[in-house]
Amino acid sequence: MPRHIGFIPDGNRRWAVARGLTKEAGYAYGIDPGLLLIAKCKACGIAEVSIYCFTQDNTKRPAIQHQAFSEASVVFACEIARRGAALLVVGDETSAQFPETLKTFRQRQGSGIKVNLLVNYGWKWDIAGLANGGLRSDEVSRLDLIVRWGGGRRLSGFLPVQSVYADIYVREEYWPDYSPEHFEQALAWFKNQDRTLGG
Amino acid sequence: MPRHIGFIPDGNRRWAVARGLTKEAGYAYGIDPGLLLIAKCKACGIAEVSIYCFTQDNTKRPAIQHQAFSEASVVFACEIARRGAALLVVGDETSAQFPETLKTFRQRQGSGIKVNLLVNYGWKWDIAGLANGGLRSDEVSRLDLIVRWGGGRRLSGFLPVQSVYADIYVREEYWPDYSPEHFEQALAWFKNQDRTLGG
Repeated sequence: MPRHIGFIPDGNRRWAVARGLTKEAGYAYGIDPGLLLIAKCKACGIAEVSIYCFTQDNTKRPAIQHQAFSEASVVFACEIARRGAALLVVGDETSAQFPETLKTFRQRQGSGIKVNLLVNYGWKWDIAGLANGGLRSDEVSRLDLIVRWGGGRRLSGFLPVQSVYADIYVREEYWPDYSPEHFEQALAWFKNQDRTLGG
Repeated sequence: MPRHIGFIPDGNRRWAVARGLTKEAGYAYGIDPGLLLIAKCKACGIAEVSIYCFTQDNTKRPAIQHQAFSEASVVFACEIARRGAALLVVGDETSAQFPETLKTFRQRQGSGIKVNLLVNYGWKWDIAGLANGGLRSDEVSRLDLIVRWGGGRRLSGFLPVQSVYADIYVREEYWPDYSPEHFEQALAWFKNQDRTLGG
């Protein structure tokens, strides 16, 4: 079993457009799947999960989208905290793009499964910390497995240092179409990967 | 067309074992495919390629394997230089594991296609440079596409910073079974990827 899993829930906008909705309408449909996914991880005894909410680059998108994914991230984080988890939000809190409500979670709070939410995160921002002694995400451990929805075969700047040895599993479905079997199939696939870590 | 492609030529040992050879015998069979691949990249007008030869972690393998992949890397590098390329070797040259012959290539030499060979490379070694102003691989540009042979869906520490937005294409074949159509199919696949770079 993987100890730490990263999730890249991509495809919200494409999902919305395919249903005749506006692009920004897709983000709100990503919240419930995320809560289901975390419940599933808890049930399976996963110790730590990291979820890509939005990046500094994403905030350059149209304001209406920015507002929608920022609000969805806040609702998602607060509900995770309410249900019980050791929640940490990782991202540049010195910027106006960082949701005020989430500043309290820049230090880990709560107990239970470790949940790291990347909010206004940037890989450059993260590794710039190395000039001052450590990654800005240095409370986030090495990833064993990364699951991405929406078909993209890339990391898109997701925790580049913690991802160095992670196995990457991709689903073609858009994130709002998440089903628990995606997660089960990711775990089954992971079991068959040969992990040598270079040795 | 991708400007810069990374190659992870994995599966040499598995290829050898499948043919009844000793594991270490596989590395020598990876040289000619590598020369063919670079010739193909030149013909297609690719500006820069980066190739994973061996890592600091790999040198912890049995000595007979270490000697075999180190020698294969030296032969490969010298032949690339002889055929003409702007060759740079990236790796920790202060260690005894770094082949003496390749020290001259720690600064880029020659002209033509840029070829970066990762020799005694380590992702930790690379990013540790950020504490002193820049990546140790800072002459290596951002990757557009990474092609990996041998079926592994992971980066295994391959240039974590330059890989942040790279599309990752995986072949199941072991590296010594390289065929030019693998490369052609990688390019065709890459053309169909949607590259937003987070925007």
